Amino acid sequence: MKPLKIGILGGGQLGRMLLQSAANYHVETYVLESGNNPPASSLCHHFVEGDIRDFDTVYTFGKKVDVLTIEIENVNVDALFKLEAEGVRVVPKPAVLQTIKDKGLQKQFYVDHGIPTSDFILTENEEDAKLKTEYLPAAHKLRTGGYDGKGVSILKSAADMDKAFKEPSVLEKLVDIDKEIAVMVARDRKGSIAVYPPVEMVFDPKYNLVDMLVSPADISAAQTAEVQRVAKQVIDALGSEGVFAVEMFIDKAGNVLVNETAPRAHNSGHQSIEGNYSSQYDMQMRVLQQLPLGSTGTILPSLMLNLIGEEGHSGPVRYQGLDEALQIKGVYIHLYGKHETKPGRKMGHVTILGENKNDLLAKARSLKSLLKVVSYE
Amino acid sequence: MKPLKIGILGGGQLGRMLLQSAANYHVETYVLESGNNPPASSLCHHFVEGDIRDFDTVYTFGKKVDVLTIEIENVNVDALFKLEAEGVRVVPKPAVLQTIKDKGLQKQFYVDHGIPTSDFILTENEEDAKLKTEYLPAAHKLRTGGYDGKGVSILKSAADMDKAFKEPSVLEKLVDIDKEIAVMVARDRKGSIAVYPPVEMVFDPKYNLVDMLVSPADISAAQTAEVQRVAKQVIDALGSEGVFAVEMFIDKAGNVLVNETAPRAHNSGHQSIEGNYSSQYDMQMRVLQQLPLGSTGTILPSLMLNLIGEEGHSGPVRYQGLDEALQIKGVYIHLYGKHETKPGRKMGHVTILGENKNDLLAKARSLKSLLKVVSYE
Repeated sequence: MKPLKIGILGGGQLGRMLLQSAANYHVETYVLESGNNPPASSLCHHFVEGDIRDFDTVYTFGKKVDVLTIEIENVNVDALFKLEAEGVRVVPKPAVLQTIKDKGLQKQFYVDHGIPTSDFILTENEEDAKLKTEYLPAAHKLRTGGYDGKGVSILKSAADMDKAFKEPSVLEKLVDIDKEIAVMVARDRKGSIAVYPPVEMVFDPKYNLVDMLVSPADISAAQTAEVQRVAKQVIDALGSEGVFAVEMFIDKAGNVLVNETAPRAHNSGHQSIEGNYSSQYDMQMRVLQQLPLGSTGTILPSLMLNLIGEEGHSGPVRYQGLDEALQIKGVYIHLYGKHETKPGRKMGHVTILGENKNDLLAKARSLKSLLKVVSYE
Repeated sequence: MKPLKIGILGGGQLGRMLLQSAANYHVETYVLESGNNPPASSLCHHFVEGDIRDFDTVYTFGKKVDVLTIEIENVNVDALFKLEAEGVRVVPKPAVLQTIKDKGLQKQFYVDHGIPTSDFILTENEEDAKLKTEYLPAAHKLRTGGYDGKGVSILKSAADMDKAFKEPSVLEKLVDIDKEIAVMVARDRKGSIAVYPPVEMVFDPKYNLVDMLVSPADISAAQTAEVQRVAKQVIDALGSEGVFAVEMFIDKAGNVLVNETAPRAHNSGHQSIEGNYSSQYDMQMRVLQQLPLGSTGTILPSLMLNLIGEEGHSGPVRYQGLDEALQIKGVYIHLYGKHETKPGRKMGHVTILGENKNDLLAKARSLKSLLKVVSYE
């Protein structure tokens, strides 16, 4: 049969890694992204330059393919609704994208479906936020357009209210966090669900970026079962095929609260390339092709470290310490093909395979001191 | 720094899998191959259509890149000598390619370096072969141009002499084979060598193709040490950086004899993608970039099964049984992006990860009966 034509909206690193997996299958790949050299552009059969937020561009692109997927949420959902209505398979469903893209709708979705989440209120402007001091300390999050830590303000007290957003936002009571956990989930067309082992996140407070994660998470068997149950509950409620990341907090009292869900492969699943039988990208390829879901089993414990542009370095990138880093057994480098670094930019990641969490953390600490993303000009 | 420009001569499946690994690094990739849609063409930055056997084509292509490598031996070596003389890094060295491409020179090389190999004699034509009945039973192999089992005739007795080659060939005494073993070896510029665990090959007698292999080989620790020692001896003697496959026989008396060496990633190393810490392709990327060699350690025992076009099927390909195959835990599909199947054509491979050889063989037998490469027209 003819290779399945798969269209990917977005040409960043998630698309790039999806295409590395796509090359294992009998498919023809299309990527839509602006700019002439994004990370995914050199690994697809057909690169189309265009704006993923533009209705006509997305619609025209979608008409070329058998199935359309995303590697970023910030796409034109109206075009996806029209394509879906005209019989193009869209994974995940446009309705799910619409709910998730708006953090206000997303929070309300959790409430409507009995999914545990932190208390929140919607704000229309910064004056509105200022009236809600009973929610402090809180996270103020733009309802739309935030990514990678941008669009989030932490409001500890009334004195921080100048950092409140003017635009429609969600004001969430801060959770007294014990652990931050993410669970990747895949769902196929028939409703079968595969749940990955939970991963434990360690944030870099400076950039508010996920900096490091360990898989499987260092939590009890009961907590593992509970976060997997909640993650499955979210994906069952969303009712769409696809690959999803459910980010959760476990608070100091042991409660599990859903923070947010991403309807796509995610930073929290990178380590699955080496650490799990079927990676999040392989899983996405299986879903797109309507093949059986893969095994989420752990091959070896793994740790993922983001490679982030150093402070004070902007320009053509150089990876300092790569030589030393690659001498460590079980270290896998993934560079995203970005030519220019800047402070805080995600330029790549490293996966480490090891025997246990302590072994992984020891290797990660060496790596963090060795390996730097700098510019050479 | 600017991404290293890597040129690959040949655009088949080995190039395709090398490019999947290349996408983990900060490199710019060029592929030279004829035809407008070979397996590697959609995964590189620059695809150049042209004949890898043509002097001017290879020379012009080589001048564009920082380092040149191969995924097939059948390239214009004279152009590589000229490029090397003009300062282009060529991996492996052209001199090694020249020796290995000619099975006569290759056999003589083993003799000259005290490397154990089966007795042989060179023949100029079929009359010449007929005079050497004392070598029977023998394998008659074309000195140049053979691949994937083509260019090899088994001459059991004088009655088979009509199958002898007219062209210059090697007549090798048949070895009383107990096991066929391959050892992948990587060597960097400084002469450091990394040796993979030996793999054990099972041939499909019908197509004279490697059909299945198991890693690590089911041989004693002493035999493992011996085949690894011999493989290292071959690569030390060749004295070139690169990735190599040393194919060996262990005869019924327990002697290790080198059959032949490939100066590149090889069918015998496919399972390293999932089964070993650094795959043969990752290793090649490390060598090309002058990064440290990776770990050859086994993550889990693995089995590799070639997916070969079924007899009686020619035309657009269909992979029958993929759905059932992908339900088996630890099964990884690698399809090579070839649109047309024909009997005996290598269309892909499957790697299986498992606990031990028996587990792997049981899964392989199910897979072989499930999964068929057929045409749909």
